[in-house]
Amino acid sequence: MLNNELTKLLKIEFPIIQAPMAGGVTTSKLVAEVSNSCGLGMIGAGYMTPLQIRAQIREIKELTLNPFGVNLFVPNKYEVSEDDINSANQILNPIREQLNLPQKDSNEIPTTTFKTIFETFMEQLKIVIEEQVPICSFTFGIPSKEVIAELKQANIIVIGTATTVREAVENEKAGMDIVVVQGSEAGGHRGNFINSHQESLVGLMSLIPQVSDSISIPVVAAGGIMDGRGLVASICLGAKGVQMGTAFLTCVESGAHKVHKDAILSANEDQTVLTRSFSGKWARGIQNQFISEMRNHETLIPDFPVQNTLTQDIRKTSAAQNNKEFMSLWSGQSPRLAKDVSVELLMKKIMAEAKSIIFDI
Amino acid sequence: MLNNELTKLLKIEFPIIQAPMAGGVTTSKLVAEVSNSCGLGMIGAGYMTPLQIRAQIREIKELTLNPFGVNLFVPNKYEVSEDDINSANQILNPIREQLNLPQKDSNEIPTTTFKTIFETFMEQLKIVIEEQVPICSFTFGIPSKEVIAELKQANIIVIGTATTVREAVENEKAGMDIVVVQGSEAGGHRGNFINSHQESLVGLMSLIPQVSDSISIPVVAAGGIMDGRGLVASICLGAKGVQMGTAFLTCVESGAHKVHKDAILSANEDQTVLTRSFSGKWARGIQNQFISEMRNHETLIPDFPVQNTLTQDIRKTSAAQNNKEFMSLWSGQSPRLAKDVSVELLMKKIMAEAKSIIFDI
Repeated sequence: MLNNELTKLLKIEFPIIQAPMAGGVTTSKLVAEVSNSCGLGMIGAGYMTPLQIRAQIREIKELTLNPFGVNLFVPNKYEVSEDDINSANQILNPIREQLNLPQKDSNEIPTTTFKTIFETFMEQLKIVIEEQVPICSFTFGIPSKEVIAELKQANIIVIGTATTVREAVENEKAGMDIVVVQGSEAGGHRGNFINSHQESLVGLMSLIPQVSDSISIPVVAAGGIMDGRGLVASICLGAKGVQMGTAFLTCVESGAHKVHKDAILSANEDQTVLTRSFSGKWARGIQNQFISEMRNHETLIPDFPVQNTLTQDIRKTSAAQNNKEFMSLWSGQSPRLAKDVSVELLMKKIMAEAKSIIFDI
Repeated sequence: MLNNELTKLLKIEFPIIQAPMAGGVTTSKLVAEVSNSCGLGMIGAGYMTPLQIRAQIREIKELTLNPFGVNLFVPNKYEVSEDDINSANQILNPIREQLNLPQKDSNEIPTTTFKTIFETFMEQLKIVIEEQVPICSFTFGIPSKEVIAELKQANIIVIGTATTVREAVENEKAGMDIVVVQGSEAGGHRGNFINSHQESLVGLMSLIPQVSDSISIPVVAAGGIMDGRGLVASICLGAKGVQMGTAFLTCVESGAHKVHKDAILSANEDQTVLTRSFSGKWARGIQNQFISEMRNHETLIPDFPVQNTLTQDIRKTSAAQNNKEFMSLWSGQSPRLAKDVSVELLMKKIMAEAKSIIFDI
């Protein structure tokens, strides 16, 4: 049960994928340790430059001989006007004032366009192929047929992300080898790309069996899974393995800010919320002052990645001040199960618990 | 694993409770068939008069010798003014017009007060005790210490409902023998009573293990569970059994309207939504015209049970016209797994699938 088509395809021993958390969480040590512990480490490369990705891939290759992967964000079209940015800054400026940050006005429009984002994406892909990374996963959509064909030609296993049956079916049709299904429990950004945000909030108890019945490629469950119980339950529901984010985020090797780790380690299951306030895309994190202050302005928040760029100064300064109130404290719905341990110990605990459940059953 | 402290406590063979769906779904045949098939049938008695409850209990006793239970709504305080009802009716009147129903004005204030609701609740309890029903479960809160003590004195097993760890802990403290944890996947009314609606939307993958770690009484999982996969998964996560609503709602013996059954049987996992529009309390059902038309008026909807009374004519007329657009089509997030079968066959399928998963594991 724990050795199945997923572990064969990925050439790993345990059916556990470390979620590719972007924003500095997936250090080379974290990724390599997961792979060295017989799971699959993943670089959350969405926000990284092609050169940064190459450097990290090479660093990880020095730390492990086992397979690991890279996750990329499929670029989404977005529209933003000077007015949008102006009104977003009007909302953010009082918060900047609280943090002693300079005010921003409409002249400072983020310069990244969809074209440059798309070009960066193509360069990121080139690096993945050149460096012969064995696995590449995607979030926020499905890349073009040509991109998938090129990766497959290079013998790279491709993994898609889905939040509904419909999105999973589209991933299979597009030629993905594996699909990660993200339940409503999941921390961080929502991966919905066809369904609306509301439609995409399906719990794993419902999502895994309904997706498993509808597609033939291996399903990997993501969202709130933290231990052997979640692993075995996911497999009983029809998944072949799990992808875990929050569980690895609080590990010693993770690059998450200490304030972020501590916030998860002391949070309860009823303290995470869904918000667009940090990035313009819906994401789940621990409730704090920033989310509360932005709550009444949800409709005025520009799309991802514009809002993400606009809030960068606030998030960075808050982190530098060890102030959790204005940082994005991404977390799934199981923070009570988070542990401050090494990756090696976490992996051992999960597998021991999973095996004991299977034995007792 | 399938025989545990829950089945011992309830004196049933299979750890499956039929959710006490109110509003005519839980016919005597449905309840008795579930109990005859070795699960626990439950009367959804929340909206029933004491005399109706007594009659149904006696009817079920004729149909089964096995244990069954009654579920009651713990009365919640609410406030409502003539203005509230006036503005609610202003929103509902255009819908009444579409259905050729007479308009309503502020003079027709529902006469039920909290006092009468509470008195009815006490009479309902009296019937349960007099009729020696072996199990009594509660939704929308925890009854007083005195009530729980009285039920226990009468050797009645008491079951509470919780949507978060905190609510589960309160149920245990109050002396409940068992707690049903309702995940965000669940259809029908949300059972949160301490936590806010948003806080209470925790998926079962997260909720079951975190509650199980925090209390000692048996945990029963509810929400999106439809088959043997969900049963075994719930038990792996720490539950001792499951409570299933939607799965029994589409059964032959259920009293749900054919239009409601058909709506579930043809729905997808991304088509249920949370709404206060029907009753004033948040509940999950299949999206339809009523929910869409009420969407922009959420804040003007009076509290439960006032809105429930106000929408009664609309729901009844819609049902009489076989028009699904103005009925409450309660459903959990797994409608793709619903089947039009007899209770006996459903129970056999679930247990066979559960045993096969346990065997294969």
